[in-house]
Amino acid sequence: MPDESASLDRLSLNQITTDKRSLEETVRACARADIRWIGAWRHKIQEDPVHSAKLIRDAGLRTSSLCRGGFFPAATAGERRKRIEDNRHAIDEAATLGTDTLVLVCGPASGRDIGAARDMVIDGIGEIVPYAEKCGIRLAIEPLHPMYAAERSVIVTLEQANKIAAQFPPERVGVIVDVFHVWWDPQVYEQIAAAGSRIFGFHVSDWMVPLPDMLMGRGMMGKGIIEIRRLRNAVERAGYIGPIEVEIFNHEIWNTPLDILLRQMKESYLEAV
Amino acid sequence: MPDESASLDRLSLNQITTDKRSLEETVRACARADIRWIGAWRHKIQEDPVHSAKLIRDAGLRTSSLCRGGFFPAATAGERRKRIEDNRHAIDEAATLGTDTLVLVCGPASGRDIGAARDMVIDGIGEIVPYAEKCGIRLAIEPLHPMYAAERSVIVTLEQANKIAAQFPPERVGVIVDVFHVWWDPQVYEQIAAAGSRIFGFHVSDWMVPLPDMLMGRGMMGKGIIEIRRLRNAVERAGYIGPIEVEIFNHEIWNTPLDILLRQMKESYLEAV
Repeated sequence: MPDESASLDRLSLNQITTDKRSLEETVRACARADIRWIGAWRHKIQEDPVHSAKLIRDAGLRTSSLCRGGFFPAATAGERRKRIEDNRHAIDEAATLGTDTLVLVCGPASGRDIGAARDMVIDGIGEIVPYAEKCGIRLAIEPLHPMYAAERSVIVTLEQANKIAAQFPPERVGVIVDVFHVWWDPQVYEQIAAAGSRIFGFHVSDWMVPLPDMLMGRGMMGKGIIEIRRLRNAVERAGYIGPIEVEIFNHEIWNTPLDILLRQMKESYLEAV
Repeated sequence: MPDESASLDRLSLNQITTDKRSLEETVRACARADIRWIGAWRHKIQEDPVHSAKLIRDAGLRTSSLCRGGFFPAATAGERRKRIEDNRHAIDEAATLGTDTLVLVCGPASGRDIGAARDMVIDGIGEIVPYAEKCGIRLAIEPLHPMYAAERSVIVTLEQANKIAAQFPPERVGVIVDVFHVWWDPQVYEQIAAAGSRIFGFHVSDWMVPLPDMLMGRGMMGKGIIEIRRLRNAVERAGYIGPIEVEIFNHEIWNTPLDILLRQMKESYLEAV
């Protein structure tokens, strides 16, 4: 019996890892590399979601998730309303792509009041849950690393994401566990276990030392200090058996020829994930 | 009766804020600016702690704390032993300066095993507590922002610091609350209350948006998005009435002429702290 951990069946290429390439280039390279999943990003598919869905399907791939809805907090009720509308579009796009999961990056506060912004996140998710249910889409709250609290997400720990998810039906609102965002957290293993069947996705990359850049400094798995396999084992013990997305913001990786990059990614995945 | 919050009595200049200056230049500028406290750094005083103590005293200042002991985790028992010895020297230096508080920056893991490194921190503190007691020095665990978890401290939340401190006598081991390190934490107000009389210090600066640099990007109070006064009120409700250190790593601030910088610092302190 083959070693399941050595299998590439669950490997998904999150599209930010090849952000300089078109969807078409990326899915063709995945097909050549025998990668079966893609994690799509809205800026790459929203011009024509139907055509994008066809490109993915024709390459023999499936879409593991769509990044990203969210960004709920805003200074005015009108602006918050616009964000809700945008989240509905994201749900539509996810449904068109045939994925069941929309990743939520919840957004920063518009001013200094982080508590009020956190309340707006809960309200925002509550607003879109009925539409997500109607469309068969799961909402996956991705806690981001606290270094992004001021600019990208006031939701910064898995405990926080779990508490918000718990206010909604378990099949509808859950969490993404991204090793880059959560590895530092003293509560991470306890909170992965607590998330259980609410884990809707697992993302991998690595934290390099020193970190070259706050946003663009992620590394290929194995190049840094995250205990990736231990975290993978924890999410599997919690019950997650879905796709594992490789999501790397890094200019050097973006500039690597696609076929070489995907070969490196598969090797790193087998060795370190 | 003057408004206590408008008073400068508790303002302390943490010496990293004037890192390009000698101790002598800094304490003289503090004296001119009627600042009564200094937070000392070891690299500025350890060449001659007795003379440093005299410089501080002669300028009419008191030392609020000494930065920093810690850095406990290491790959070998021999190296960990050296770190303990270095912490004993730091305790001696603190006593010589006449401060009662040594700040602990606990250090990163030597490899990937963050759990083992956290255990080494607890063991290391346990090793130095008896000597700290003998010398009348309090050990103040400073949780650092999680973005420093790989390079400076595996202790990254106030909850973690509180749990470690709780293993030791309350008058001997406590915590530093630094707004830059803890503002993002969903548990911060709960954990400040829990820390209570174990709060041995309060540090202020600000988180600018966008953050110019992971290490050198801190801002003067009021320039960023931290709810500094709300956090000050919380530590005061918890019982802390000691010095408030302004600790800013920032090249622009380092290059500002001392008298101008201290004037700006006092104004920002009165307005935003």
